Amino acid sequence: MSSSPEALKIGIIGFGPFAQFLASTMVKQGHTLTATSRTDYSELCSNLGVDFFRDIDTFLNVHNDVILLCTSIVSLSQVLKSIPFHLVKNPNILFVDVLSVKNYPRDLLLQVLPETMDLLCTHPMFGPESGRDGWDGLPFVFEKVRIRDQDVCSSFLQIFELEGCRMVEMTCEEHDKQAARSQFLTHTIGRILSEMDIKSTSMDTKGFQKLVQLKESTMKDGFDLYRGLFVHNKYAEQELKNLELAIQTVKQKLLDRMEEK
Amino acid sequence: MSSSPEALKIGIIGFGPFAQFLASTMVKQGHTLTATSRTDYSELCSNLGVDFFRDIDTFLNVHNDVILLCTSIVSLSQVLKSIPFHLVKNPNILFVDVLSVKNYPRDLLLQVLPETMDLLCTHPMFGPESGRDGWDGLPFVFEKVRIRDQDVCSSFLQIFELEGCRMVEMTCEEHDKQAARSQFLTHTIGRILSEMDIKSTSMDTKGFQKLVQLKESTMKDGFDLYRGLFVHNKYAEQELKNLELAIQTVKQKLLDRMEEK
Ligand SMILES: NC(=O)c1ccc[n+]([C@@H]2O[C@H](COP(=O)([O-])OP(=O)(O)OC[C@H]3O[C@@H](n4cnc5c(N)ncnc54)[C@H](OP(=O)(O)O)[C@@H]3O)[C@@H](O)[C@H]2O)c1
Ligand SMILES: NC(=O)c1ccc[n+]([C@@H]2O[C@H](COP(=O)([O-])OP(=O)(O)OC[C@H]3O[C@@H](n4cnc5c(N)ncnc54)[C@H](OP(=O)(O)O)[C@@H]3O)[C@@H](O)[C@H]2O)c1
Repeated sequence: MSSSPEALKIGIIGFGPFAQFLASTMVKQGHTLTATSRTDYSELCSNLGVDFFRDIDTFLNVHNDVILLCTSIVSLSQVLKSIPFHLVKNPNILFVDVLSVKNYPRDLLLQVLPETMDLLCTHPMFGPESGRDGWDGLPFVFEKVRIRDQDVCSSFLQIFELEGCRMVEMTCEEHDKQAARSQFLTHTIGRILSEMDIKSTSMDTKGFQKLVQLKESTMKDGFDLYRGLFVHNKYAEQELKNLELAIQTVKQKLLDRMEEK
Repeated sequence: MSSSPEALKIGIIGFGPFAQFLASTMVKQGHTLTATSRTDYSELCSNLGVDFFRDIDTFLNVHNDVILLCTSIVSLSQVLKSIPFHLVKNPNILFVDVLSVKNYPRDLLLQVLPETMDLLCTHPMFGPESGRDGWDGLPFVFEKVRIRDQDVCSSFLQIFELEGCRMVEMTCEEHDKQAARSQFLTHTIGRILSEMDIKSTSMDTKGFQKLVQLKESTMKDGFDLYRGLFVHNKYAEQELKNLELAIQTVKQKLLDRMEEK
């Protein structure tokens, strides 16, 4: 593969907030984008320089190098059922997903993808909020689940390398284990703080300011994303239990020493 | 009062981490410091340029403008009992406390302080960690509980004004209400994360990095400080309950929508 980035033809399925965020960088890098989604994004796409197709059959009829799945975690199974794979123009196309859980799409895609198609499972560990000022140094997690065409796969990964992402190759299994302890926990705390309706005061400590920021950035993601992190990562439930347990431990330590009051 | 800062004679009771942190700035500003503490800090003090007295009677025999109480919240009552107030050289001295709760020291000090002495209750909303790179813009909360000598009080407040602190005058009551919802909650979450033993991974999101930092800075403060925030702020218990409730609400929202799986 040459070191200068190859322009790819990328078709995006699911053009919500995260797809839009990725698309603008991909267009900037000179890739050719098409998209389809449940909602009509024709106008938004035309502003971005992306060809939008309301109809999935017509969308699949374009010859692409890559199909990028950007649907919500909880709708993936339904969306996959609606794809007529036999209509995919390029039989050796690379499927890539960006879901924030990894075992779940990996397993589903291995079941439904025609054997001739390649599969790369990824999770960019940033979003419209945390990646607003660029992606430099931000982690991009991926597993090459089934790659025959190394060139297309490398060209796709280069999109993120070029922006300075820290490329982290790990299994989907390992991703889910770590993400439950980090990302799911972070979203949970953000949502707890939002339930408590915490607000900046005139006397915030630096630590509290961090929590207010966390609450705000968490709540910019929809509940579907958070629900997906819980329902489709088998490690998440245990981390929720660990959190509840830790609160009880901290509380007990306070109460145990009340007599020293 | 003149706008050029007046050099004060300040005696510190309780020379732990926070007192040491404050003292180095006060010495830098040209104030004359003496100190006493349960532990012998003679050597540390001589390095800082502070006169240390093991014996409280000798300590009180120095003519000071200000006595600064920097003991732990949970030892305040015991420490106050050990002060022979009749030995305080200057009968019109200004007592200042820096405890992270405010109603509690205010009430105790109003009970035990001789009527001739002034009282300023303060809470610098930063510490050795968050104030390491200077105090500029950091909040300094205070209530002038009983001030007759405005000049000495102003000179003392100027120490923090000069470093760029945001001066926030509010009642001890209002402080405790707000601090339970902000600082106590922050410490609680830091300690919960520490119980969970969270650790930085190769794929941290920016949000998770904030939590790791929060855990680390919280754990630099001793458990006595955290226990004081709980035991001696009447609003803290309710905030702990609110936190537990919020977790249950978030959990219930996840479970309620499990059937949409
Ligand atoms: N946001 C982030 O920071 C971030 C970061 C890394 C990875 N991700 C992953 O990226 C994906 C998209 O995330 P997001 O932030 O854009 O929000 P999201 O709410 O997780 O997903 C929105 C997308 O899902 C589609 N969708 C939802 N329900 C559907 C259904 N029943 N049928 C068909 N399509 C449906 C939406 O289509 P319409 O818009 O057409 O309705 C939209 O394209 C998720 O898998 C998420 O885990 C997000
Ligand atoms: N750390 C911060 O960031 C911060 C910020 C704002 C306000 N404060 C407040 O500042 C005060 C000091 O805090 P800190 O961080 O230094 O740690 P701390 O553990 O809250 O207090 C340590 C101080 O309390 C003294 N002490 C503890 N138990 C005692 C006892 N039984 N008898 C006599 N003295 C006793 C210690 O004396 P020895 O060292 O001599 O043993 C030391 O001077 C606290 O009231 C805290 O709420 C702290």
